[in-house]
Amino acid sequence: MTNVQLQSDERIDQLFSQDIQIIQSASVFAFSLDAVLLAHFAKAPKGGRGLTVDLCAGNGAIGLFYSQKSLGPITEVELQPRLADMASRSILLNGLEDRMNVLNIDLADTLDFIEGGSAETVLCNPPYFLNSESSQKNPNEHLAIARHEITTNLDTVCQTASRLLKMNGKLFMVHRPDRLVDVLSAMQAVRLAPKRIQFVHPKAGKEANMVLIEAIKDGKSGGVRVLEPQVVYDDNGQYTPMIHQVLYGE
Amino acid sequence: MTNVQLQSDERIDQLFSQDIQIIQSASVFAFSLDAVLLAHFAKAPKGGRGLTVDLCAGNGAIGLFYSQKSLGPITEVELQPRLADMASRSILLNGLEDRMNVLNIDLADTLDFIEGGSAETVLCNPPYFLNSESSQKNPNEHLAIARHEITTNLDTVCQTASRLLKMNGKLFMVHRPDRLVDVLSAMQAVRLAPKRIQFVHPKAGKEANMVLIEAIKDGKSGGVRVLEPQVVYDDNGQYTPMIHQVLYGE
Repeated sequence: MTNVQLQSDERIDQLFSQDIQIIQSASVFAFSLDAVLLAHFAKAPKGGRGLTVDLCAGNGAIGLFYSQKSLGPITEVELQPRLADMASRSILLNGLEDRMNVLNIDLADTLDFIEGGSAETVLCNPPYFLNSESSQKNPNEHLAIARHEITTNLDTVCQTASRLLKMNGKLFMVHRPDRLVDVLSAMQAVRLAPKRIQFVHPKAGKEANMVLIEAIKDGKSGGVRVLEPQVVYDDNGQYTPMIHQVLYGE
Repeated sequence: MTNVQLQSDERIDQLFSQDIQIIQSASVFAFSLDAVLLAHFAKAPKGGRGLTVDLCAGNGAIGLFYSQKSLGPITEVELQPRLADMASRSILLNGLEDRMNVLNIDLADTLDFIEGGSAETVLCNPPYFLNSESSQKNPNEHLAIARHEITTNLDTVCQTASRLLKMNGKLFMVHRPDRLVDVLSAMQAVRLAPKRIQFVHPKAGKEANMVLIEAIKDGKSGGVRVLEPQVVYDDNGQYTPMIHQVLYGE
């Protein structure tokens, strides 16, 4: 294994279903089930090649998980230097530096670094919450930026994704159901047609708390497929077999 | 029971969970699970009063089922004379003529008959399919009009619902998931904010084939709730307990 330096608050976590190790830090950023499910939901492009861009990449977890599906280059775009640095070191840790890199930039500037219309796939786990003055934000700035639309917003994310994607390229996004209408509107406004949607429910009989969306660049509206729901926990508070499989591969 | 004349192709069906009888005809129109689930999904307004309008009413099944929840007047709007006549006779059959009536009109003309901003609730099971030249239509005109957007369309339906509703009044609609994006866009374009969504899956593990949507007039976007999924059949092809309850009340 490559020798990668850890900072004092960092640890290395493994997603057991995949041979991928991720540098985490509870004090700045740790991936959650959302990231795992988005990487699982996202499909590899035909032939497994083509450029993938992970926007709002955080510590790079989604791109790293997705690297097991795709054979092509993957670029992680992350604004926060500390998180971008964690992502860079996780890439080294997994020996993926020949086809993965990190751009430590504002995603609004992505097109200055990556040619428009060049991406086959865009992945995105954006900040979920509106940056309203009344919203309760985490006093930890790293976490606040990751969760609230402080440094970017849904329109900018979708606009950037659309400009990056080639015709018929795909965006895979995870978001909260309470913003479903906003998400679908923002996509449609920039020629991204939602095509496949999956809701995630914490338990059977409970409302969804996560939504996974696949949209296609320059696709027609209509023909949306709403997949079978994912349920995370069974009645005993244990992971359902479906989620256990995604996390542990068995 | 009121003595109501049946035509030769007609029968009387009962929804066993409710004490409501409906005149049906396989050759022109018979309600389906969609109608039952929409009436079940729709909530009564506070106090149970206020005007309800059922657009694209067909043989009036949804309004008749909903009459068990609401104490106020219910107007059924149906273009096809034969179906409007069936709805009128079903109203008599159930002794509901003191608070239910049928308007045999094009729904685009509804505002000539019902004052704008006067409805507390609008119910609608519209034609599901686009009227594209290539679409396969039922050679039976009655059924084709009920299923395809031949005489109306989603924008007109939503526009009419919005004009009928008072501020904070609610539209309850059933549609197909493959048109989800179109439906949500059409609602938003006329100040109807989707607030509660439920998907219906034919079996566990299968894609949704029906979506129930509650939208509020002049509500803010955001705050959408995606309810627990409804599943119609169990693995043995029997109704699930949830659906059995809705249909048979036990």
